[in-house]
Amino acid sequence: MRKLRVAIGQAGGPTAVINASLWGFILEAVHHFDVSLVLNGFQGLVEDQIVPLSSQFYEQLSAYQDIPGSCLGSGRWKLSGEDFPLAIRHLKEKDIHYLVMIGGNGTMDGCRELKKTADDLNYELAVIGIPKTVDNDLQHTDHSPGYGSAAKYVGLAVRDIAADLKSMKNFESVRIIETMGRHVGWLAAASALVKQHDEDPPHLIYIPEKPFDQEAFLRDVSETVKQYGYATVVVSEGLCDRNGNVLSQLPIGQTLNRQVLGGVSQYIAQLVIDELGLFSRAENLGMIQRSSRLARSSQDYREATAIGRQAAQWLKEGKVGIMLTIEREAAVQEEYRFRIGSCPIERVAGEERPIPPHFLGERGVNSSFIEWLRPLVGLDVRGYPELKLIE
Amino acid sequence: MRKLRVAIGQAGGPTAVINASLWGFILEAVHHFDVSLVLNGFQGLVEDQIVPLSSQFYEQLSAYQDIPGSCLGSGRWKLSGEDFPLAIRHLKEKDIHYLVMIGGNGTMDGCRELKKTADDLNYELAVIGIPKTVDNDLQHTDHSPGYGSAAKYVGLAVRDIAADLKSMKNFESVRIIETMGRHVGWLAAASALVKQHDEDPPHLIYIPEKPFDQEAFLRDVSETVKQYGYATVVVSEGLCDRNGNVLSQLPIGQTLNRQVLGGVSQYIAQLVIDELGLFSRAENLGMIQRSSRLARSSQDYREATAIGRQAAQWLKEGKVGIMLTIEREAAVQEEYRFRIGSCPIERVAGEERPIPPHFLGERGVNSSFIEWLRPLVGLDVRGYPELKLIE
Repeated sequence: MRKLRVAIGQAGGPTAVINASLWGFILEAVHHFDVSLVLNGFQGLVEDQIVPLSSQFYEQLSAYQDIPGSCLGSGRWKLSGEDFPLAIRHLKEKDIHYLVMIGGNGTMDGCRELKKTADDLNYELAVIGIPKTVDNDLQHTDHSPGYGSAAKYVGLAVRDIAADLKSMKNFESVRIIETMGRHVGWLAAASALVKQHDEDPPHLIYIPEKPFDQEAFLRDVSETVKQYGYATVVVSEGLCDRNGNVLSQLPIGQTLNRQVLGGVSQYIAQLVIDELGLFSRAENLGMIQRSSRLARSSQDYREATAIGRQAAQWLKEGKVGIMLTIEREAAVQEEYRFRIGSCPIERVAGEERPIPPHFLGERGVNSSFIEWLRPLVGLDVRGYPELKLIE
Repeated sequence: MRKLRVAIGQAGGPTAVINASLWGFILEAVHHFDVSLVLNGFQGLVEDQIVPLSSQFYEQLSAYQDIPGSCLGSGRWKLSGEDFPLAIRHLKEKDIHYLVMIGGNGTMDGCRELKKTADDLNYELAVIGIPKTVDNDLQHTDHSPGYGSAAKYVGLAVRDIAADLKSMKNFESVRIIETMGRHVGWLAAASALVKQHDEDPPHLIYIPEKPFDQEAFLRDVSETVKQYGYATVVVSEGLCDRNGNVLSQLPIGQTLNRQVLGGVSQYIAQLVIDELGLFSRAENLGMIQRSSRLARSSQDYREATAIGRQAAQWLKEGKVGIMLTIEREAAVQEEYRFRIGSCPIERVAGEERPIPPHFLGERGVNSSFIEWLRPLVGLDVRGYPELKLIE
């Protein structure tokens, strides 16, 4: 019996574990399906870059699955107009009736629209979405693969940048550290990963869930520097003012008519200089936070692989039209446990997911958030102790 | 017999292993000396922040020695005028005749000047310098503690940022990654750590040892993007034009009348946008490159500890007025070996150390440089293989 054909692709920004999901899927899928690869995300669907899985690539991927980046190529192609029937035509030419995409909000939206077009054209198509986002902005899942590793990067980088600043506090006193996260604050919040006491960095965290209040900000920075001699401040790239306008976007994005978030740390560091006269340096954590191999979380990696395998199993069982989710089970003897669930793909598409109010605290997030976060990153990561230099 | 008194301090920017040198020194020194700590670098000498080593701090440091940052506080205090006799007075009040500073060029300069002042004042003072710099700009040593770890960070971060960019090359094509390094290119050059073939990132490396030629740069970027579909470009913060003028300095440094290198990546990314019309993003690796715990090199850590211990031994033997150095011994069965040497502190002070011409290559550095670098970082770090997506 000829196997049914499935195509799998990756879309949107990469993560440290997106290749693990690809590998998990392929490992299981090859037993039941003829697998094809969609290169370069939705662009590859539209431009017919759909290639059969070769045994050579299968071998290579088994060694490459723990490497960051999207190894099939991804990108940010926004499907529109004629793209939809064109993509369906290319799938039809290859007799592919199953499409699996690993991606975030925009990707799930694209999958839903592709399914609609297929229905309109009377082409039988089943879609499954595998979640992936460092921003953790997907609804209906406890968290998304990719977030745990990025959160680990942010938590450890902020810990180390703060230790660096503390050594230099008689030279410079404020660092404004910018994280990714788009319009939600999950990654900025992760900077509190190893914080235990008020005096531990980061001292202040600003997230898009709360409008940025310049006066309160300057007062808080000034007080922090008075109290501890320095201030480590974390800001999310998507920070907004009271009117919901984003504070800063990268000028280089605008130049090419593309809007890319980023640069808010420079805007805010300049504020501190102008208004408080303190030496303040902007640090944008940049692309490494979503693609660091060193900071990959083992738990994140396990979950990314497991969710890929489960997608292939459910595809075989005919459970389609879903995005897979991660459900947190009740801890057994304090040990974190998860299981894989699902929700209809159309429910998740295009939504956003702010940090819920019960995780928010006065200067960022509270200890419940940290308890929620720790197992996703690994319980072995630690903060640095306070040294007693003078007896 | 009462033990002689020695004071040790840390100065200049921190590294991932500067506390290991402190610990190595103290571990050995406590057997022969009464040890005091100079807090906050030279500022602590001038402002009398010199405290006895407590048993509590000794215990804490034994656990803290592998943590980045300068745990005594350091800073960039530039000694001048009345600072010198004041510092000597504070040492004299405490009957301290031995001063050990862990630092870079500026620190060695300061030690030499302090010694001169002491001589002028007929105060018996012996100084020893322990090298420390991520920039690797100290003369008369094969390399300096701190460089191996920072080089590892740069090499791995550029590898991962390139893997990230490659996944997204249908969305953005150029990343300009900025490293530290002051007026020399050692850290930018370290981005070639795991590069094996021309097509491997980073594709282009620009260092202060060669004047930046805008036309050649634009041509090279354009060709690289045509050939590989994307370009990973590394630039050193201290890049200069043909007239020896630094291309860019941080505006926030200027605002407070301090000149701080940095920002050249933004200047160059904008060039690519304006002149080539390619999506180009600036990435400044920032402070984490000198203070990352995850990227610490074990070899660097071993050497930093060993050099601290040797300083205490030589101090006991009366070998003073030196900066300790690291000498590379002939490899035995291809295994890297080092031994600790010394040079007169006045020979090293204030000098700079560009990458020698035999390490330079057409698009950055050559393979001899990488062979020289690899053992300092660890031979276990690897690049990512090229995947064959299409049969």
